[in-house]
Amino acid sequence: MKMINDDTIAAIATPPGEGGIAIIRLSGPQALSIADLVFQCPGLPPSKRAANSFVHGRILEDTTGEAVPEVIDEVILLVYRAPHSYTRDDVIEIQGHGGAVCARRILRRLIDAGARSADPGEFTRRAFLNGRLDLLQAEAVLDLIRARSDRAATMASDQLNGSLSGLFNGIYDNLVSSAADLESSLDFSEDELPGHVIPEIQDRVRTAAEDLARLRATWDEGHILREGALVVITGQPNVGKSTLLNRLLTSQRAIVSGTPGTTRDTIEEGFILDGLAVRLVDTAGLRETDCEVEREGIARAGSYINQADVQIYVMDASIEIGTDDRTNLERLDGDHSIIVLNKVDLGQAVVADDVRSYGTPIECCLINGMEPDGVKDALSTIIESGVPQMQQAAISERHRGLIVTSITSVDEAVSHLGASEESGVLLAANALRDAIEHLGLVTGRIYHDELLESVFSRFCIGK
Amino acid sequence: MKMINDDTIAAIATPPGEGGIAIIRLSGPQALSIADLVFQCPGLPPSKRAANSFVHGRILEDTTGEAVPEVIDEVILLVYRAPHSYTRDDVIEIQGHGGAVCARRILRRLIDAGARSADPGEFTRRAFLNGRLDLLQAEAVLDLIRARSDRAATMASDQLNGSLSGLFNGIYDNLVSSAADLESSLDFSEDELPGHVIPEIQDRVRTAAEDLARLRATWDEGHILREGALVVITGQPNVGKSTLLNRLLTSQRAIVSGTPGTTRDTIEEGFILDGLAVRLVDTAGLRETDCEVEREGIARAGSYINQADVQIYVMDASIEIGTDDRTNLERLDGDHSIIVLNKVDLGQAVVADDVRSYGTPIECCLINGMEPDGVKDALSTIIESGVPQMQQAAISERHRGLIVTSITSVDEAVSHLGASEESGVLLAANALRDAIEHLGLVTGRIYHDELLESVFSRFCIGK
Repeated sequence: MKMINDDTIAAIATPPGEGGIAIIRLSGPQALSIADLVFQCPGLPPSKRAANSFVHGRILEDTTGEAVPEVIDEVILLVYRAPHSYTRDDVIEIQGHGGAVCARRILRRLIDAGARSADPGEFTRRAFLNGRLDLLQAEAVLDLIRARSDRAATMASDQLNGSLSGLFNGIYDNLVSSAADLESSLDFSEDELPGHVIPEIQDRVRTAAEDLARLRATWDEGHILREGALVVITGQPNVGKSTLLNRLLTSQRAIVSGTPGTTRDTIEEGFILDGLAVRLVDTAGLRETDCEVEREGIARAGSYINQADVQIYVMDASIEIGTDDRTNLERLDGDHSIIVLNKVDLGQAVVADDVRSYGTPIECCLINGMEPDGVKDALSTIIESGVPQMQQAAISERHRGLIVTSITSVDEAVSHLGASEESGVLLAANALRDAIEHLGLVTGRIYHDELLESVFSRFCIGK
Repeated sequence: MKMINDDTIAAIATPPGEGGIAIIRLSGPQALSIADLVFQCPGLPPSKRAANSFVHGRILEDTTGEAVPEVIDEVILLVYRAPHSYTRDDVIEIQGHGGAVCARRILRRLIDAGARSADPGEFTRRAFLNGRLDLLQAEAVLDLIRARSDRAATMASDQLNGSLSGLFNGIYDNLVSSAADLESSLDFSEDELPGHVIPEIQDRVRTAAEDLARLRATWDEGHILREGALVVITGQPNVGKSTLLNRLLTSQRAIVSGTPGTTRDTIEEGFILDGLAVRLVDTAGLRETDCEVEREGIARAGSYINQADVQIYVMDASIEIGTDDRTNLERLDGDHSIIVLNKVDLGQAVVADDVRSYGTPIECCLINGMEPDGVKDALSTIIESGVPQMQQAAISERHRGLIVTSITSVDEAVSHLGASEESGVLLAANALRDAIEHLGLVTGRIYHDELLESVFSRFCIGK
């Protein structure tokens, strides 16, 4: 991908499929002149029109030599002039009729007239390279499009507004000035330098370390908002795991039968719980088995349990707790587990108090169609406790890696400043430069091709 | 659905799914004031802005009592003022971020602020009721969105431009003036009326009848362009029907095996041939069988054959023509059939000349991966012959029914005018009024609720 925006890119920016309107975007130095070539309207051509205005007209096939040129579509054409556009280049947006063919014909016409088909995320990449967005805001665009819940959308919208950028920039600026101050202190002999200078810088660096630690802690929240909380239903065969999944989804997603070992493939479905996306996974019942397919299912269940944000362990309450159940219960993380005591209609050999030390117990009888509200409430409480502050900004996986490295460097700087060696200041300054470099990659103050490629290749074409 | 546009409707106008941009449309008398309520931007609010301008800003949650209102999305807002809009009412279009959540949140905000969720096609319905489009143009909007080939899109685009409306309006105006002239001739006694008056009117009515017949003949073309040509592959079991389907699609769509009777479900797939959409159907092999599933498959094949625009009959060329093949061949419509003589590598017991009288013969060997270009060429020739003129306008099924009824009435009028009875003029005038009423329903000069319901309920929401 070229780094210089010397060409004009075009792409369909609306999703494929049947819809009333499709938008085709054109961005770059030739956007206006290409629009003049393909578009016909009463009055002035696009290139002579005012910025932020739109006009009704027609996209025509190449008219060279034809008396009556073919009309491709009747459209609305929007004129954005640099730098007041999404990319900060000249941008033309064409609103045509939706559907499979029209938008593609318009795009083809634009390409015939000199545009290049845009790569995924290339419009946003140009917006970044032209300084309209930093990298955190560009990533927020994708988060917003991908958001599956209101709260995820709110977080992405805040991030787009610069909430997360503000936090990072504050820390970044602090570290840059601390490093600069340290470096200039090197010009003074120890006698010349007032005794309070280094301790003051150390305080500022310590504050940065604390700020970074706070940001690192938002990852849980960011992860749950971006990807959804992973809730895994486990338990021995035939205790009612699939029935619980169906009840929670209020559908008949999983096949339920009285035969132990019915579920083999793990079944994953999403739903929204109190504004948070939940990925609910039903797993194969945990037991020793000779059946290879079932064994593979049980192995998969194990790998889901390792990643789970919440585990729902289902038990048959009508029979005593056996050795296997006891082993499984003891493995549960009490703060992130719900224990569903099912089949209480058949008798209560196990009651809530027997298992309360392993997780949140819920007694119920799923087969009788009882709504598992208790389960939903408990689930909601646990997930909310994982996203304690519902801050306006929360980091993603990419940011976490960079923050962790930065924290190591900043901590190093703090300890060098606390040491009595003369070389401490220089080492501290170097460590801060390392931290700054990594933090710069978060917001994109520092970037390289591979970084941009990895960020923007996840975008859809047309954004 | 209300006939009076006294409320303001809102809907998402872009397809669902992941895409860069979503558009939410708002149309009606409160469009501007609702926009003022939900939208924040520097400078003037939407209602004070110039028509055909757009502005960058934010959609906010209900701000009552909150210090910092939540930002739902960063958007571009377009202002259209009546009557220069799609519906001819005031229209606001909001371009927000694509994806599942953002657009829905914006729509919800608009509805909270007083808009009503639009019914399918309601924007276009309002455009029709407000006189911006006639019914043929409104239907062209849907054809354009649904178009599966360039040529279908071109036809729809021409129809949207009024090509078909022009033809109908010409005939309609002719009939209206003819009926009026006939009715005023009734005020004169036979002696007073010049002898050339009635014959002249009769000529005009006859011209209308011819024009209508020409329009009726465009149905084949319209049907093939709108729905795609239906091409059905038939033949006895295990002659290579599914292999032919896969070759034509250049994919492995159908399961192919050496076992006769492999295909039971009819398999339908679309492809584009010389700019025309083709619906290709592979059917169960035709044979007597005890298997109930296979019998059902064969019954379905029969019903496809009845609707087919082209039938491709596949035979094993290496064995002699048997009784069943002979019976099937004799049932073919020669002008609309292709006979594929497959497996020529195994010997040629049947050659092209043996079957030429039943359809277009193609000798080939599908299993060796030979490209069935001959088949495609023959298919293209036959389909093109069904759409001989590629006119700019072609009628749909709905129009055909109304035209057929109109033609009956117009023919009746012509014969009444030719008869010598004095009552003939009155009867002819009445017949013309009948014809006019039906033609009026084509363009929507005459309409009723059920007609609009049946036309617009086929639209997507947001158009």
